[in-house]
Amino acid sequence: MNPLPMFRYNWQIRDEWLEGLAALPEEEWTKPRVGGHRTMLRTLAHIVAVEHEWITTVQGVPDVNHDLDDYPTPEAVKRFSDECRPTVESFLLDWGPDKETGTFEASIGGKTVPIKYAEAVGHLIAHEIHHAGQLSVWAREAGMTPPSPDVVFRGLF
Amino acid sequence: MNPLPMFRYNWQIRDEWLEGLAALPEEEWTKPRVGGHRTMLRTLAHIVAVEHEWITTVQGVPDVNHDLDDYPTPEAVKRFSDECRPTVESFLLDWGPDKETGTFEASIGGKTVPIKYAEAVGHLIAHEIHHAGQLSVWAREAGMTPPSPDVVFRGLF
Repeated sequence: MNPLPMFRYNWQIRDEWLEGLAALPEEEWTKPRVGGHRTMLRTLAHIVAVEHEWITTVQGVPDVNHDLDDYPTPEAVKRFSDECRPTVESFLLDWGPDKETGTFEASIGGKTVPIKYAEAVGHLIAHEIHHAGQLSVWAREAGMTPPSPDVVFRGLF
Repeated sequence: MNPLPMFRYNWQIRDEWLEGLAALPEEEWTKPRVGGHRTMLRTLAHIVAVEHEWITTVQGVPDVNHDLDDYPTPEAVKRFSDECRPTVESFLLDWGPDKETGTFEASIGGKTVPIKYAEAVGHLIAHEIHHAGQLSVWAREAGMTPPSPDVVFRGLF
């Protein structure tokens, strides 16, 4: 499976989340929640940051670290997401048999560990879906209908 | 990407969820929750049912439908999951270039629609992760530490 359609799935839903949050009163997206990254907004900024930090690591770019406090509104998280997306997308457009089975070196906790490209990419796909699942519970608590989590019938494959 | 490691990821975590639920008092897994399938237990039974119903549909087996009320305990859901898994796994072990790009016909709401194998498989991967994200919020409400959602460092790829 080429991983790009699953990233595009996440990006569609991410944009729907950010639109949905922008339509809610600020106190809903800054309200402390159990689990995730404290608030709905910070959880969305965290999704963007983790995806970008991992993909730059995979590409060998040293130490990209984002501060979630830099994105205090849904509009700011949307701009952040739009800025990071081309880097991630161009990495995935370049996916091929070498990536399917290959390994890169990541520095984690001061140690260098080998990680498979497919494992890292699977991690990022699951990471966003997991947090979007959490967001869907908080959204219903806030009276918002969450975006559909369905992959099928989006024309992505 | 071969989809099997992502299914194995979901199955590992599913088993951890079912063990975790079995260790909680019954009122926690039968308590009504906002979102998902009403309770933690029914949401887990729903994950198993949807995966098995989709894969049998993909294989052309007509109308497999499970009743979530048939699985009233974590142990019953675990048995249900164990019974369904070989069908799903053998389908995925047979994954290859024909599945990567091929299409099957599904009957949805009385209409026959073409769906790509990769799309259906991506849908099932996301479906379980989405619900596990919801479960993680409810678990924390119940005082349970949810299983780690990390894909990396599980030796699955």
